[in-house]
Amino acid sequence: MPLADYFPIWDKLTPAQQNKMARSVCQKSFQKNTMIHNDSMDCMGLLLVSTGQLRAYILSDEGREITIYRLFDMDICLFSASCIMHSIQFAITIEAEKDSNVLVIPPEVYHQIMEESAPLANYTNEIMASRFSDVMWLIEQIMWKSFDKRLAAFLLEETALEETNSLKITHEIIGNHLGTAREVVTRMLRYFQNEGMVKLSRGSIEVTNINKLKKLHNP
Amino acid sequence: MPLADYFPIWDKLTPAQQNKMARSVCQKSFQKNTMIHNDSMDCMGLLLVSTGQLRAYILSDEGREITIYRLFDMDICLFSASCIMHSIQFAITIEAEKDSNVLVIPPEVYHQIMEESAPLANYTNEIMASRFSDVMWLIEQIMWKSFDKRLAAFLLEETALEETNSLKITHEIIGNHLGTAREVVTRMLRYFQNEGMVKLSRGSIEVTNINKLKKLHNP
Repeated sequence: MPLADYFPIWDKLTPAQQNKMARSVCQKSFQKNTMIHNDSMDCMGLLLVSTGQLRAYILSDEGREITIYRLFDMDICLFSASCIMHSIQFAITIEAEKDSNVLVIPPEVYHQIMEESAPLANYTNEIMASRFSDVMWLIEQIMWKSFDKRLAAFLLEETALEETNSLKITHEIIGNHLGTAREVVTRMLRYFQNEGMVKLSRGSIEVTNINKLKKLHNP
Repeated sequence: MPLADYFPIWDKLTPAQQNKMARSVCQKSFQKNTMIHNDSMDCMGLLLVSTGQLRAYILSDEGREITIYRLFDMDICLFSASCIMHSIQFAITIEAEKDSNVLVIPPEVYHQIMEESAPLANYTNEIMASRFSDVMWLIEQIMWKSFDKRLAAFLLEETALEETNSLKITHEIIGNHLGTAREVVTRMLRYFQNEGMVKLSRGSIEVTNINKLKKLHNP
């Protein structure tokens, strides 16, 4: 996958910057469950996900985890290169959740180009703002966590009522049931899908792990 | 207060960029408890705090609040200009917590200069990373919230033991008592100070709102 496909602003880099990045990039493969980055490891660089799935999470002293976000094909992992930005002062752990192929841009190369290229700096800003938004969403869910439980309850009730794990129902209708915007339902269902509880397809929601859903509803 | 004092990268802007920003800036005063920004208001622009204190918080549908961070003299408020970055997709509310004077840079002016200036884009990035770090810290506190309660309990116990609200004790010693790094104690004490529960000075901690501390310890 050429670098240009990862960076919509690729054409706004100078030929020298493009060459520098292209020459420095290397490919790495990680087996499922490999730890890719944590606070005690060296700064690896910027990761571009070619195939597979990465998970970013934080870890308490007692070993409890919270998933912050997941990264899929074509996603850029900024926090494996936290050494690039001094103001990132939190410890995040990144692991391969499936067998993954990634491209790695060394931190010093990325940093140098970002220092001189406003388009790359602004694009990096957008990635960070997007992850920031994910995290703010997570805080709201955690603090006012009724909605994930209410949605789990609703799905469990529907599967019992319809006597099938494959529900034909739109996100909008669920939103109407639960007094919530369609977007909120979609986002939470995607989160459930990431957690392996449901599988989404056009016009239907398949419950794939009913026990996990029950546990969420009634921990 | 000249703009150069807010932006350490001011000298790296071109004279044209400096002039554009300086010409566009305006001064505003907000009385204590004024709502400055929320999701339904127009994008005001970038706020630079001259004097006073702003509070950024999120709000649940039921009206519950969580303080995300506070802004003091010389701080830059990025999220009052969330229209500058499309990827910021969360609603934050900003209010004046004290009578405040702020400088306002119109969003389109800031956006234009950031688009062409790598130093300004990178500096904006650093501000965002720093706020991101605050929010990650908050998540950890919320999820694994034993420490704020433990610290509140410790301070209450000490005031009872010493029969004074003015404790002569270092953050390091508290850390030793609670099995935590000094930095963590300092950060939490500053949070308590922001919340009006204690007042910090060199070598001492004054408990200023014992009821609030008790409520935190045993809600």
